[in-house]
Amino acid sequence: MEISIKTNNKQEFVDITNKVSELIKIENGICIVYCPHTTAGLTINEGADPNVKQDMLNALYELTPKLNYKHMEGNSPAHIKSSLIGNSLNIIIENGELKLGTWQSIYFCEFDGPRARKIYLKFSN
Amino acid sequence: MEISIKTNNKQEFVDITNKVSELIKIENGICIVYCPHTTAGLTINEGADPNVKQDMLNALYELTPKLNYKHMEGNSPAHIKSSLIGNSLNIIIENGELKLGTWQSIYFCEFDGPRARKIYLKFSN
Amino acid sequence: MEISIKTNNKQEFVDITNKVSELIKIENGICIVYCPHTTAGLTINEGADPNVKQDMLNALYELTPKLNYKHMEGNSPAHIKSSLIGNSLNIIIENGELKLGTWQSIYFCEFDGPRARKIYLKFSN
Repeated sequence: MEISIKTNNKQEFVDITNKVSELIKIENGICIVYCPHTTAGLTINEGADPNVKQDMLNALYELTPKLNYKHMEGNSPAHIKSSLIGNSLNIIIENGELKLGTWQSIYFCEFDGPRARKIYLKFSN
Repeated sequence: MEISIKTNNKQEFVDITNKVSELIKIENGICIVYCPHTTAGLTINEGADPNVKQDMLNALYELTPKLNYKHMEGNSPAHIKSSLIGNSLNIIIENGELKLGTWQSIYFCEFDGPRARKIYLKFSN
Repeated sequence: MEISIKTNNKQEFVDITNKVSELIKIENGICIVYCPHTTAGLTINEGADPNVKQDMLNALYELTPKLNYKHMEGNSPAHIKSSLIGNSLNIIIENGELKLGTWQSIYFCEFDGPRARKIYLKFSN
């Protein structure tokens, strides 16, 4: 199962919680959310205050070293952020719903946009 | 299934390996350990020398940028550490036991304590 | 199921995509890849240009703080990198194959080699 995402900025966190919820096909089990891109990632973090995602993007920019990277495409910092954040998530499904914490949202993390992206979902009992 | 954890410090790694082991309900499969909080996380690392967890906390403090964060609660560094460390783990279960490496322990990572926290567990065949 | 890996350098990314693919035993489901070591990790990132893995190693070296670590073995930076990168992966299996993105490879990340290492695999429907 796949979700399509259109990002609008070079770097951006897109809340995909509702898109994932709509595709739940099981009552109880595990949902794997998987990002097939190498300059993007997935994370779960606070969804209530939009400042949190901006603070996280700023912090990721700051902490990624500004080196003389060899990769000719010029997007090595995006590859590095992808591996730091990670490219897959496990979420428990209970009674047909994502068992997230009160403040948790699922974010697609764009590090080299804007682009047309996709996410794979897999449900397991 | 849930585990309750009481943290005692602002930042702390709590070894929850035994708490997870006690709740194993299957002979062979996968255990998902899930943190529903956005200012905490989960990691697997060395459990033998307690200096390792202190070194890791010090390094995480150092590497998280000291920016003028916008999130009003003042705990943006904790949100960032949560996404860097991650909020879920996969562990293989074999013969009713966690198949950890020799030196591995499971840590709950508190980044904005002290608080009463919880962890979700899910077993899958 | 286990994969043996011999690393040749202090720090190194080893592409294990083919080794994982050869061991797939199911048609559809999830593959968990698990690293039982505390000074190594696993990540998925670009496999086409070998410069990407060198850029990532350089960035990880740069961003890990140079502190007066207490752990006597002198490899605290390797423990920290292990938790930043993570020690397990989820990959979807479809029609008997890893459902990776076009540019994705699976990397074993050595942070304290050279050593003889191993990886655990678990397939789940």
